Amino acid sequence: MGTVAARLADIVGAENLLVGDAISDDYAHDEALSVQQQKPAYVAKPHSAEEVAELLKAATEAGLPVTARGSGTGLSAAARPVEGGLLVSFERMNSVLEIDTVNHVAVVQPGVTLAELDQRTAEAGLTYPVYPGELSASVGGNVGTNAGGMRAIKYGVTRSNVLGLQAVLPTGEIIRTGGRTSKISTGYDLTQLIVGSEGTLALATEVTVKLHPRLPHGATVLAPFDDFDQVMAAVPKVVTSGLAPHILEYIDNLTMAALVYNEKLELGVPDAIRDRVQAYLVVALENRDTGRLEEDVETLGELLSELGAIDVYVLEGGSARKLIEAREKAFWSAKSAGADDVIDVVVPRSSMSPFLTKARELAQTAGAGAIGCGHAGDGNVHLAIFCKDPEVRTKLLTDIFTCAMDLGGAISGEHGLGRTKTKYHKELEDPAKLELLRRIKQGFDPAGILNPGVLFS
Amino acid sequence: MGTVAARLADIVGAENLLVGDAISDDYAHDEALSVQQQKPAYVAKPHSAEEVAELLKAATEAGLPVTARGSGTGLSAAARPVEGGLLVSFERMNSVLEIDTVNHVAVVQPGVTLAELDQRTAEAGLTYPVYPGELSASVGGNVGTNAGGMRAIKYGVTRSNVLGLQAVLPTGEIIRTGGRTSKISTGYDLTQLIVGSEGTLALATEVTVKLHPRLPHGATVLAPFDDFDQVMAAVPKVVTSGLAPHILEYIDNLTMAALVYNEKLELGVPDAIRDRVQAYLVVALENRDTGRLEEDVETLGELLSELGAIDVYVLEGGSARKLIEAREKAFWSAKSAGADDVIDVVVPRSSMSPFLTKARELAQTAGAGAIGCGHAGDGNVHLAIFCKDPEVRTKLLTDIFTCAMDLGGAISGEHGLGRTKTKYHKELEDPAKLELLRRIKQGFDPAGILNPGVLFS
Ligand SMILES: Cc1cc2nc3c(=O)[nH]c(=O)nc-3n(C[C@H](O)[C@H](O)[C@H](O)COP(=O)(O)OP(=O)(O)OC[C@H]3O[C@@H](n4cnc5c(N)ncnc54)[C@H](O)[C@@H]3O)c2cc1C
Ligand SMILES: Cc1cc2nc3c(=O)[nH]c(=O)nc-3n(C[C@H](O)[C@H](O)[C@H](O)COP(=O)(O)OP(=O)(O)OC[C@H]3O[C@@H](n4cnc5c(N)ncnc54)[C@H](O)[C@@H]3O)c2cc1C
Repeated sequence: MGTVAARLADIVGAENLLVGDAISDDYAHDEALSVQQQKPAYVAKPHSAEEVAELLKAATEAGLPVTARGSGTGLSAAARPVEGGLLVSFERMNSVLEIDTVNHVAVVQPGVTLAELDQRTAEAGLTYPVYPGELSASVGGNVGTNAGGMRAIKYGVTRSNVLGLQAVLPTGEIIRTGGRTSKISTGYDLTQLIVGSEGTLALATEVTVKLHPRLPHGATVLAPFDDFDQVMAAVPKVVTSGLAPHILEYIDNLTMAALVYNEKLELGVPDAIRDRVQAYLVVALENRDTGRLEEDVETLGELLSELGAIDVYVLEGGSARKLIEAREKAFWSAKSAGADDVIDVVVPRSSMSPFLTKARELAQTAGAGAIGCGHAGDGNVHLAIFCKDPEVRTKLLTDIFTCAMDLGGAISGEHGLGRTKTKYHKELEDPAKLELLRRIKQGFDPAGILNPGVLFS
Repeated sequence: MGTVAARLADIVGAENLLVGDAISDDYAHDEALSVQQQKPAYVAKPHSAEEVAELLKAATEAGLPVTARGSGTGLSAAARPVEGGLLVSFERMNSVLEIDTVNHVAVVQPGVTLAELDQRTAEAGLTYPVYPGELSASVGGNVGTNAGGMRAIKYGVTRSNVLGLQAVLPTGEIIRTGGRTSKISTGYDLTQLIVGSEGTLALATEVTVKLHPRLPHGATVLAPFDDFDQVMAAVPKVVTSGLAPHILEYIDNLTMAALVYNEKLELGVPDAIRDRVQAYLVVALENRDTGRLEEDVETLGELLSELGAIDVYVLEGGSARKLIEAREKAFWSAKSAGADDVIDVVVPRSSMSPFLTKARELAQTAGAGAIGCGHAGDGNVHLAIFCKDPEVRTKLLTDIFTCAMDLGGAISGEHGLGRTKTKYHKELEDPAKLELLRRIKQGFDPAGILNPGVLFS
């Protein structure tokens, strides 16, 4: 065993260090499409912040690149390790440390999955409302990417729900940021700086998140529209109605057809209607009171009809759940259909229609396909890109991202830049801002060991 | 005129530059108590981002310390200028640039006051929900301090409601961060880093804020309690009830007596009850539907009675408004009563009771007084400190801040560190974190011109 391996084994215990062939393929990738797999030289599985600190100190001294890994469900290859590097996997730091029902917070280790946290909070009548489509994702990974998901329209994204962190700096110090309070004005907000930093500034070893009351009653409404632009025009109206939907998704006709087929959905939409639909809205409401919920569903139905919905279907519990689950699996649908990339551009809600028109035009011109669905309420568009030729694809994505940015949007709403979008960011972002990001990075990570290749190339 | 003055006058126009005796006392202070006034050498009143950029370039070149000023209503002397320095006053950059009713955002210049923004959003049926007690405060100043206020319990603080900035770096670059979208995962969040940075990283020249529907119906409930601890125990129960109050304040008996006297309030609380009260809760609800509001007020009343309120008073529109306004003026009440400082410690809601018990004990031991009120729902306690001797006061504040931090809280929940609390922060905060803050500062402001003495001493 080399001296580096010996030192790492000393820190986490030999049984928690994988080297060479003992490293399975799982650690060589996340779920991003069209990205080359890469095994690291070492996989370490620490079980405490102190061990993480020792690992980072050792890595800084050895100049060893370090990539953090939660569940590896990311869609931008931010958790794909570097050749010869160390992958720090948080799979053993997976305890829910506390559900604090007085302050409405949970304190968890980073490896806790959303599924586990959901179960634990449910027992207390509470919920952690960040629901990206993949519940095997870890809270630490969510911190890394600033994950969003379907309920962000009501509850905000990870950023809005993380109150505090314990984090390890690349230089080995363990710090605590924020806490169990939702306001602090005591210096720069390090919590917010670390959230969304994709493992390039510090590694989270404990996360304090905000919990919300779990509202017992919910209803899901499906509204097919003839015309794509009508859907996009309806979205801001639903957002501003005061009905406070917690889900507000659009699904285009091709994507819906694939979901219906793959997931065997029974939506009750007659064939005659289905054939003319260009896109659907899915809107979910929740309430602590059934009477109010019913009233609101009625108001919503009327509003959607006024806004041009062909019809409005209030889905029964079972089929509603299946539709939402299918929507969460849209990524797998796209992947099995042969998509070459899935992007998650965000634009102001008002610009979704021009953005999508332009993006589809660009795709058509490039001989490519761009279909999808998205967190419509947030202006967050998920497009599956079908375009085999890497050069054509790069050009197409550059054009699509440019279009989004020109409309006041950004390259990624929730998946992060990772290894797949860093190059576009570098090309398209204001150099003065890139320089600032670089200086912040330098301040945290002078040796540059944390996730090289991500955010900075 | 010196060469520096000439250059500054060139940039903003001679009529917008004040030098020497032309500088009024107003510019020498904000509203913090017990802070020495200090006039700057120059006051410049730019009217565009470009002028701000030129000013900062000139200042960097001349090594001139620069302090930004909004309305000067801050309570920590963060806008108090430095001897020989330049005060950049945003009073002329005071236009509401856009109320965007589709994306629910407002785009404003930093000098816009909250009163003005409130009027403009009201015309569109919307509201910007950050309501610190002083509506003459500017949006830019709110960005500086990460202002909170009464409605943070429901709508969050400034940080939660600022979506994007145009900002000028001390080196003169004009950048744009964020935008009209509520989620972005495209590199470090510079918006969040600048919010709450008290004019030490960059100056905001345009602010994009989130707007919310202005709910038409509201009700305010006043609940007196015999016992201080009961009030503190009631707070988390009200927060977690699902009633979603937008105001949840406590007011101790001495503070209430002063408010009733100064503001001539008629609360309808009989003398017999008033004499036994230790503290009051003020809870306000709002709804788009009167029926629902009435139901909720009833539920709230029952809940408060169960939690030990002596009685529950639903205040009529006029007296409700007067009470809220009086609460907003608690600072002036404390000032006129001779308070030597007003602090705004934040602790987890669950720790308010032990914190207040300890803080009052500490004050008593020091022969000082500590009375107050606070944004109870946020664990944000405003204490007026009566203690003339500066040394005793410094020791007392150190002890109070230490106590708050030991309970998982922070020195300031919303007023910022400014010139009054930076020294405590330096003494009590983890050196590893202080070092990180310093490196971030260095990355933005290599020449150290922005607000020296604030956050760093
Ligand atoms: C079917 C499917 C649907 C999805 N739907 C959504 C969606 O709706 N919304 C959405 O936002 N995402 C979605 N995703 C993407 C993914 O679930 C999220 O990006 C999630 O946050 C990744 O979590 P993870 O634990 O798998 O992180 P990983 O992929 O392991 O890592 C993600 C990033 O976080 C960093 N990281 C991991 N742990 C830590 C730590 N402890 N400290 C610091 N950094 C760390 C990594 O280095 C990496 O940069 C979906 C993915 C799939 C497969
Ligand atoms: C009676 C009263 C009640 C109050 N109640 C509350 C309350 O409930 N909650 C609360 O949070 N505060 C409260 N405050 C404090 C005060 O209103 C807030 O701190 C407010 O944010 C200050 O705004 P301002 O425009 O007066 O800023 P200033 O005092 O002028 O400046 C504050 C800080 O912001 C910086 N700054 C100003 N403009 C910019 C800019 N364009 N770019 C970057 N930095 C800038 C300054 O340099 C300084 O650091 C109260 C004050 C009073 C007098």
